[in-house]
Amino acid sequence: LTAPGDAAPAPGADTVFFLSDYGRQDELVGVVHAVLRRLAPRAVVVDLTHDVPAFDVRAGAAALSRALPYLGPGVVLAVVDPGVGGDRRAVALQVPGPGPRWLVGPDNGLLVPAARAAGGVERAVGLPASDPRPGRAVQGPATFDGRDRFAPAVTAICDGADLAALGVSLGPTTLVEAAEPVNETRTLDDGRHRLRAEVTWVDRFGNVQLAAAGDVIPGAVREVSVTVRAGRGDPGPLPRVRTFSDLSPGQPGLLVDANGRLALVVREGSAAARFGLVAGAMVEAVW
Amino acid sequence: LTAPGDAAPAPGADTVFFLSDYGRQDELVGVVHAVLRRLAPRAVVVDLTHDVPAFDVRAGAAALSRALPYLGPGVVLAVVDPGVGGDRRAVALQVPGPGPRWLVGPDNGLLVPAARAAGGVERAVGLPASDPRPGRAVQGPATFDGRDRFAPAVTAICDGADLAALGVSLGPTTLVEAAEPVNETRTLDDGRHRLRAEVTWVDRFGNVQLAAAGDVIPGAVREVSVTVRAGRGDPGPLPRVRTFSDLSPGQPGLLVDANGRLALVVREGSAAARFGLVAGAMVEAVW
Amino acid sequence: LTAPGDAAPAPGADTVFFLSDYGRQDELVGVVHAVLRRLAPRAVVVDLTHDVPAFDVRAGAAALSRALPYLGPGVVLAVVDPGVGGDRRAVALQVPGPGPRWLVGPDNGLLVPAARAAGGVERAVGLPASDPRPGRAVQGPATFDGRDRFAPAVTAICDGADLAALGVSLGPTTLVEAAEPVNETRTLDDGRHRLRAEVTWVDRFGNVQLAAAGDVIPGAVREVSVTVRAGRGDPGPLPRVRTFSDLSPGQPGLLVDANGRLALVVREGSAAARFGLVAGAMVEAVW
Repeated sequence: LTAPGDAAPAPGADTVFFLSDYGRQDELVGVVHAVLRRLAPRAVVVDLTHDVPAFDVRAGAAALSRALPYLGPGVVLAVVDPGVGGDRRAVALQVPGPGPRWLVGPDNGLLVPAARAAGGVERAVGLPASDPRPGRAVQGPATFDGRDRFAPAVTAICDGADLAALGVSLGPTTLVEAAEPVNETRTLDDGRHRLRAEVTWVDRFGNVQLAAAGDVIPGAVREVSVTVRAGRGDPGPLPRVRTFSDLSPGQPGLLVDANGRLALVVREGSAAARFGLVAGAMVEAVW
Repeated sequence: LTAPGDAAPAPGADTVFFLSDYGRQDELVGVVHAVLRRLAPRAVVVDLTHDVPAFDVRAGAAALSRALPYLGPGVVLAVVDPGVGGDRRAVALQVPGPGPRWLVGPDNGLLVPAARAAGGVERAVGLPASDPRPGRAVQGPATFDGRDRFAPAVTAICDGADLAALGVSLGPTTLVEAAEPVNETRTLDDGRHRLRAEVTWVDRFGNVQLAAAGDVIPGAVREVSVTVRAGRGDPGPLPRVRTFSDLSPGQPGLLVDANGRLALVVREGSAAARFGLVAGAMVEAVW
Repeated sequence: LTAPGDAAPAPGADTVFFLSDYGRQDELVGVVHAVLRRLAPRAVVVDLTHDVPAFDVRAGAAALSRALPYLGPGVVLAVVDPGVGGDRRAVALQVPGPGPRWLVGPDNGLLVPAARAAGGVERAVGLPASDPRPGRAVQGPATFDGRDRFAPAVTAICDGADLAALGVSLGPTTLVEAAEPVNETRTLDDGRHRLRAEVTWVDRFGNVQLAAAGDVIPGAVREVSVTVRAGRGDPGPLPRVRTFSDLSPGQPGLLVDANGRLALVVREGSAAARFGLVAGAMVEAVW
């Protein structure tokens, strides 16, 4: 985290990037959209995803971090919030850009990785217990802060409000950080290298993203021996490839994925199903 | 329902609130969006939800009613329509605002609860058998009224058409109303009170909303004995709390939810799964 | 496919119609939206669907073709792309309109049926290996062309770029075409007619769309004997009806659906579940 900066960003924003674990089966996402539309009618809302596993702050933080480099100017609204209504803080963060300049959500580890990816927290404020727009009365429910606290704060930022008008200043170093995923590499006695890395994401296709950067394995390595912990069967030696079509259909392999991370994949198939892997599982690779 | 009013709302609208049971797995929702975009290019569409259980008019009506207080000006397009193509009427309703001034959809009980929440039906018209915009020929299919009848009517309203131009006037009292959910409270011989209430909604997290208003149980009551009918095990005595974080993780309780209704919840867990509850199930509470 | 035309469409577009098999559980769709928002801030994105079954090019092509007649002016961005990163070409196609004038995606059979429905391919270009906008460097990942190749090409078209500026000209007849679904009718020895048709789509409600046009069975035929191959039980003689409400709840029948195709349906029920049918299954009908 950087020290609090002096520079205020240009006021206002016209794009809201919205991520949550609300799902789509209910009207929760739609109601937040409606509040944004009512309070900031000129803002366009880009839904990143609303299918973060319920209450899974780390998964939400990972998705937001992956998306961040591709976002243009705007405000991030992120809600994965098992502690809603409790004493966890609600915060708005300011970051340097050139992407989104603000992130709004619960102070539970969801925002900090993305804020770091955006250059670090310049300023942070804690939002009041209800609608933070000036002059609004504190309201009743304490179970739907996305609608009642975060969305109004986002629209105030869209309208050009300075963070100082929205809440009390917080030291960026006091923000809650989630545990980093396991990601360790060491050299074995025989000169080979071993990576031990946590699964950070299983995508829709069953591709298994690891916490490790794609370049941890030198480009010249053509084959890697992979072991899974608490999974189903060991992949064994796998080819290191550039893309899916370097594999034959159904063949597993390792590649550097679209986020620059190491990923275990099966061409036109699910590596997660094949090897019994879910987010949080541990994978070892030796080369 | 109120009597038909004289006041016409300001013509036109620039927001469409869209709810359906079309799901997202097909292109149905997208095609309706495309029609709205083509016919009313300046309107913004806010999707409330499209995952109302198939054909479940009451669930759709409940979702729309819950959302309504949070919607700004605009037109509601709502389609949960097991009788499509049959003799159920297609209608457009006018309500007082300050939120949406119009609701468009089938006359099967889907719209009336939301119209009531919006202040009551001021005017109602029955839409013709196909595209209701002036001068359009009657078209063939009778299975996708969202695309062929309702969306064109919505865009005509966005463009400022008066309801009278869209169809024949209907008496608001002739509109079909769905059965109200069960919601009964009575005093027992021993002076305690018993609530018998239907489950109106199980949300994505497994929170169980009841038909009962949150204030049916006086605020001073700290513990309520809860029984479920046709569920799995009885919750027994449950704490009455303000919010999730007044419970420990995994603990069940009762609270007033974000819609002001009584809800059976489990912190960071699913009350529906824990007690075998689905929409339509019956819950009894004694205090 | 038509021969390449001379007429250039009016430059630029303000609507993007987006279809993929990315699903909604991850941030993939949201990231593509963010790229579109950043590079073409005035364009509105209409999501057709993102739940095409993973890697199922034919299902994606069918959905896009069904949607096409309802789309207004704009650009289609379609990505169902099991060959991403390989030697399949990435293409942008120009068609006559009056709907979308351009389609962008992989050259694997996904786009051609919709292009044909839009009047045939007038011009086609192959996109370079990365961001095709002039002056952009070739980038690294080869696994997320929706984000890195197709979306930038779409935004260049939105901005008024001519196809010739985006890639090398291709002969429209060289485009890959997917296998057509089975759709055969013949007259039997006894004078009756037999249709053999592939299931092209099972929608959210379980309606079973066949490859056959709705008018293959003359309007006067009131009953059709239906047999399913590799399904569960035979429907037997079914009524031919105009719409769902001509059936009683739970009753199966045949109708011409909202796309003008023959469909096997059950009123307020799932014909797919009832008869064990999925996309690709074969249905025979005799009348």
